[in-house]
Amino acid sequence: MSKNIAIIGATGLVGQELLKLLEERNFPINNLKLLASPRSVGKLLKFKGESIPIEKLEYNSFSRIDIVFASAGGSLSKEFAPSAVRSGAIFIDNTSHFRMVKGVPLIIPEINAEEIKKHKGIIANPNCSTIIMLIPLALFYKKFGIKRIFAATYQAVSGAGAKAMRELEEETKAYLEGNNYNNTVIGQPYAFNLFPHNSNMNDNGYVQEEMKMINETKKIFSNQSIEINAFCVRVPVMRAHSEVLNVEFSQKISVNTAYKILSNTKGVEIFEDRSNNKWATPLNVSGKNSIYVGRIRQDLSRKNCLDFWVVGDQIRKGAALNAIQIAELL
Amino acid sequence: MSKNIAIIGATGLVGQELLKLLEERNFPINNLKLLASPRSVGKLLKFKGESIPIEKLEYNSFSRIDIVFASAGGSLSKEFAPSAVRSGAIFIDNTSHFRMVKGVPLIIPEINAEEIKKHKGIIANPNCSTIIMLIPLALFYKKFGIKRIFAATYQAVSGAGAKAMRELEEETKAYLEGNNYNNTVIGQPYAFNLFPHNSNMNDNGYVQEEMKMINETKKIFSNQSIEINAFCVRVPVMRAHSEVLNVEFSQKISVNTAYKILSNTKGVEIFEDRSNNKWATPLNVSGKNSIYVGRIRQDLSRKNCLDFWVVGDQIRKGAALNAIQIAELL
Repeated sequence: MSKNIAIIGATGLVGQELLKLLEERNFPINNLKLLASPRSVGKLLKFKGESIPIEKLEYNSFSRIDIVFASAGGSLSKEFAPSAVRSGAIFIDNTSHFRMVKGVPLIIPEINAEEIKKHKGIIANPNCSTIIMLIPLALFYKKFGIKRIFAATYQAVSGAGAKAMRELEEETKAYLEGNNYNNTVIGQPYAFNLFPHNSNMNDNGYVQEEMKMINETKKIFSNQSIEINAFCVRVPVMRAHSEVLNVEFSQKISVNTAYKILSNTKGVEIFEDRSNNKWATPLNVSGKNSIYVGRIRQDLSRKNCLDFWVVGDQIRKGAALNAIQIAELL
Repeated sequence: MSKNIAIIGATGLVGQELLKLLEERNFPINNLKLLASPRSVGKLLKFKGESIPIEKLEYNSFSRIDIVFASAGGSLSKEFAPSAVRSGAIFIDNTSHFRMVKGVPLIIPEINAEEIKKHKGIIANPNCSTIIMLIPLALFYKKFGIKRIFAATYQAVSGAGAKAMRELEEETKAYLEGNNYNNTVIGQPYAFNLFPHNSNMNDNGYVQEEMKMINETKKIFSNQSIEINAFCVRVPVMRAHSEVLNVEFSQKISVNTAYKILSNTKGVEIFEDRSNNKWATPLNVSGKNSIYVGRIRQDLSRKNCLDFWVVGDQIRKGAALNAIQIAELL
């Protein structure tokens, strides 16, 4: 049963990764429609050897479309999802717009695939840092119960888009040549530098990225009482987010048991060479589909508590791949 | 009362910073002796406009020396501290060798200056990440009690020395030019990459850097029961370490109170522009003497618990400045 697919935002980082993965996974496509803002219209993008022209995104773009993948910003998803749903399409949204809306399933296929049945046309894809954090913890949550998660993130520039990546390269080059550089996309020095995540700040002192990790976790686990806190930092890395997770369980779990659980967890690979003190890094997991975990150990300060080192390609499993897996479930 | 000073390891990053700070602070020096391994002997280093030749480090190097600053590695401190002390000098050690030795005071002047009286010739300077973590917490500890600290670090390459800094620059340049680079000092890809701290791994799954933060905190606070855990990561930043601290207190502290306490804490400056979501970063605190703190907020998952963002120049306050402040106390 091949599907008619539309992609909103095909020229962006996530859109490009979607095209790559749809081709790689040989997703059954009957017709592929690429939709974007007027300035991209007419550009050609390659898919399975064919050149496909980008069309203008309009309310009537969705007739005969089965599945829409949207990753062009919350305001476009807000504007165009209703027309897509009215046309009978299922709208898989990579933006944050619908994630916390009641009745919209927020899906990580490895964790809460069964929730997908409840959709009324729109299915939301969680934030990348949320996906990377939760996939390794899913089986622990089911088998042992999680009391509290504290996450500190090390997030790549690619989370801010392709322009920010180019800017970091240029800025770093200027730094090495001893030249000044006026950083306009990120808006603060980033070459050999880092800073707390620059998404919008809430009154409670948390930025949106952190609130996404907190609120989405509660929704995905259908548990408002899980204790979770996150501190997000952008680091001068191109691609793949890393996270330090300090997790308190409802009962004692040995380090050995934790490794056994992880080796049975879908979407996870254990990546470590303990004797040489080598672990997953952003460079060695970029472009990979799994979430890589290692360096598990007992928290020396608190019982029933373990540390995890987690790295995942946030454009792939953190966004494009998760969206395609949702479509595959359908 | 001018002092005769000897520096072991004057050509290293910390040694260079020591010279700069002794000059800046106009430390009362009668005679300055620079000691190093044979391969540096004869080199000249500038101090207050004078060129001072580096002499060979020997057991009899310390006659008439009042204070020795040592920062040339644990094995040299181990070998030469006894001769220095026998000659009547006070040996201020920047290496980890004597830190956990009973009877050797481990001093952060802002926190436990009174312990210095107990010295028997050797005084140890704590690890840089420990100093950066504890200075902002000192007054909280005294006034409110700290139950638990969880620290995630973002550590600069300069912690691995000047050669590692040059290597990261060269490697990054090669990366930007699309060339391969064989990283020999750090031993794993570091350009636009990061990795869990590469100090030696213990059987308990913690590396030495992490155990230093844990054990030194207990010694500095003279409290074996304080709960503390640390996860250390090296990031591609040149200088200054950043830390995310999640701190549980023995009683409730509002965010406002926390800022008030910090504004009364010696060695700390509050650095933030909350409305523009700008905070201390490694680049804007490099070369500064204070520890910069901000982005304090209530932990949403646990009461009596706050998050802190802390950045400090680990070569300056994390090492050289702290050692000089110890000498000034004497």
